[in-house]
Amino acid sequence: MTKDVWRIGVAGLGTVGAGLLNFLSDRPGFAPAGGQAVITGVSARSRSRPRPFDISNLPWFDDPVALAASPDNDLFVELIGGSDGPAKAAVEAALNAGKPVVTANKALIAEHGAELALLAESKGVPLLFEAAVMGGTPAVKMLREAMVGDDIKSVAGILNGTCNYILTEMDSGGRAFADVLAEAQRLGYAESDPTMDVGGFDAAHKISILAALAFGCAPTYAAAEIEGIDGIELLDIKLARDLGYRVKLVASADRSSDGVLVRVHPSLAPINHPLAQAGGALNALFIEGTRIGTIYIQGPGAGAGPTAAAVAADIADVMTGAVRPVFQRPAGELKPFTPVDPSKSMGRAYLRFLVKDEPGVIAAVSETLAEAGVSIESFLQKPVENADGVPIVLTTHAVAESVLTAAIDRIANLPSVLERPRLLRIARI
Amino acid sequence: MTKDVWRIGVAGLGTVGAGLLNFLSDRPGFAPAGGQAVITGVSARSRSRPRPFDISNLPWFDDPVALAASPDNDLFVELIGGSDGPAKAAVEAALNAGKPVVTANKALIAEHGAELALLAESKGVPLLFEAAVMGGTPAVKMLREAMVGDDIKSVAGILNGTCNYILTEMDSGGRAFADVLAEAQRLGYAESDPTMDVGGFDAAHKISILAALAFGCAPTYAAAEIEGIDGIELLDIKLARDLGYRVKLVASADRSSDGVLVRVHPSLAPINHPLAQAGGALNALFIEGTRIGTIYIQGPGAGAGPTAAAVAADIADVMTGAVRPVFQRPAGELKPFTPVDPSKSMGRAYLRFLVKDEPGVIAAVSETLAEAGVSIESFLQKPVENADGVPIVLTTHAVAESVLTAAIDRIANLPSVLERPRLLRIARI
Repeated sequence: MTKDVWRIGVAGLGTVGAGLLNFLSDRPGFAPAGGQAVITGVSARSRSRPRPFDISNLPWFDDPVALAASPDNDLFVELIGGSDGPAKAAVEAALNAGKPVVTANKALIAEHGAELALLAESKGVPLLFEAAVMGGTPAVKMLREAMVGDDIKSVAGILNGTCNYILTEMDSGGRAFADVLAEAQRLGYAESDPTMDVGGFDAAHKISILAALAFGCAPTYAAAEIEGIDGIELLDIKLARDLGYRVKLVASADRSSDGVLVRVHPSLAPINHPLAQAGGALNALFIEGTRIGTIYIQGPGAGAGPTAAAVAADIADVMTGAVRPVFQRPAGELKPFTPVDPSKSMGRAYLRFLVKDEPGVIAAVSETLAEAGVSIESFLQKPVENADGVPIVLTTHAVAESVLTAAIDRIANLPSVLERPRLLRIARI
Repeated sequence: MTKDVWRIGVAGLGTVGAGLLNFLSDRPGFAPAGGQAVITGVSARSRSRPRPFDISNLPWFDDPVALAASPDNDLFVELIGGSDGPAKAAVEAALNAGKPVVTANKALIAEHGAELALLAESKGVPLLFEAAVMGGTPAVKMLREAMVGDDIKSVAGILNGTCNYILTEMDSGGRAFADVLAEAQRLGYAESDPTMDVGGFDAAHKISILAALAFGCAPTYAAAEIEGIDGIELLDIKLARDLGYRVKLVASADRSSDGVLVRVHPSLAPINHPLAQAGGALNALFIEGTRIGTIYIQGPGAGAGPTAAAVAADIADVMTGAVRPVFQRPAGELKPFTPVDPSKSMGRAYLRFLVKDEPGVIAAVSETLAEAGVSIESFLQKPVENADGVPIVLTTHAVAESVLTAAIDRIANLPSVLERPRLLRIARI
């Protein structure tokens, strides 16, 4: 499939699209694998919107589907976003026209990756999505290509830069979630509707894609267990630090004989652990394989420069003419994974209780935990200036999630306990 | 170039060769990109040597060159090692026969990579060497493929697991270099002739390859500045720790307008920095790009499992039929880089002096430094039970290497200074 010139249609001129156009204008002869990359068509919601670069000389398409299907380009780059709608229609149109597709769209791949892979493979063209996960940090290439000689047991990491920025600022600045979120929105680090990010859904899209690549199954976003950071209180960040941990939004996928468990949770990472040290908007990922052992990769997870560089690397891969399965095994063999019942999953936990400041409370809580079969690992009570109650916090030894939940239910009903206990997982890293 | 069956000849049945045979016997249907991998010939120094796997059913070749040229295989895997001799002859024979080559041989690629790339590209076949650097951690793929959309400024890291193991054991166990080396040799972590590892030459081979991939130049091993860990004293490890650093063998390649500086030095890394935290036999690498920013990757740098997995990933890449330059730009354009004069390079330094225990010594040392233009950043004098003298240790602000060397020469001649001062660089990370 090698060509002298690759004519590229780009749909979507937001941050990543702008980054790609800037990159190709800085590197007009970009020809990483023989052929030269030339943009021969663009599409976006508004042609006239002011942009920091000139598109007046580029053929314009109001309809991204028409751009995708146009015979005037050989390769389609989808940077529109969204799991359905024009992004999906355009990618399908390009694949149906027998064109390689490069996309940065995590929602599309996480929710429709298997069917799109089937279409791409039936047409014999690549469907690449490096920029969908960890921006410029090549997590997809690592799992898709570099790890084919291994059997992956688990992947776990920080996949959402916005959440990591917010948690880092809460920790370092001692500020509340809402305060930091508002600032992040002002600075453009968070969307005006931050739900996808702070609700954990963006990280869940990404870990669903990585799980598919790691375990050779279809992306199974619907089976992901998702909890965001919107309920994280500054108090928990401070108490976790007193216990030697930082709170991070950890996305993980674990394979066992029972199936696959894909989860996104705010989790405690030991303060000296690389995940705890990865601050600000950094992304980070651990990959654990049977043969290779553990590999760690860390880098910027978003931004025009890094994400556009990932798109450019995918364009280069298309140019090489490489033919390989979209998800590491042929699309016809991809099946949704069997989800593990999360209630059976074992793990350590952090529990925070708000209790009345009266004798016998600690005894009542610890007895209830013991009766339920939850074993305490560490315990902390600190005086706080809060007339409404006294927080006590503890970490448990590994316990089944169902046992833990039952214990929390019982403790919540104790008369001396003022609110439902707060549960945070301790990351299994 | 896609095939139903890929017939593979493997020359060299040491640790990596054994790992590869074990892997393919565990995964008899290994077909990561359509074609199935089947070993159809092996070669090693001795056929009868006891091995933990059976080679009696595999066609045997006494001469690796004959195996490489044999029409009975389509892909040649070179795991013999050594920059010249049979390894080079066999790789050339395979390429001349129009066969893709996969090798784990860092010395061969670092010293003859440009000419071999020219041969491979003239025949239109891939020459892949993921296993040559960082074992199972895909540093080569990252620079060669994932970073083509960026301009790399520097790469720096820990590329030799044996040295990292020795330095980590010296630090954690308070043991001398010779003691730890002897133990590492007993345990099989170090060769009976450890020169390639502890002398820094292995790391220099690897950073020369990474520099070529990062900067689009020919591997230029001859221009690398190399210092090993064989002169590292336990005292320096302890004093560095008192100053907040760990001693690591850091290999780095930096590009500037003056050219490229490739160096291997025992260097001080701040104790909380990921390079300082990467202990034992781990390898670690920072890649700094203009667009992507900084990416960090860490993992096992050696061992049968990881290295064989890297070879298997390269075999998969051959199967995809991908055509791209061996070193990220066409071999005909590869030139040795222009080395930067190391005496002009700026950096911070650690200096340790052994002085007579008498008044005025510190004044003499610090005056000499000031006169030479070296500015002190921190200073430490600790009492030790050493009747021969008192060690004083300091770190400097950034200073040109030539200025530093001149200052050291003058201090070495002071009557109160008992031996030539010990210089260690502070890593620029």
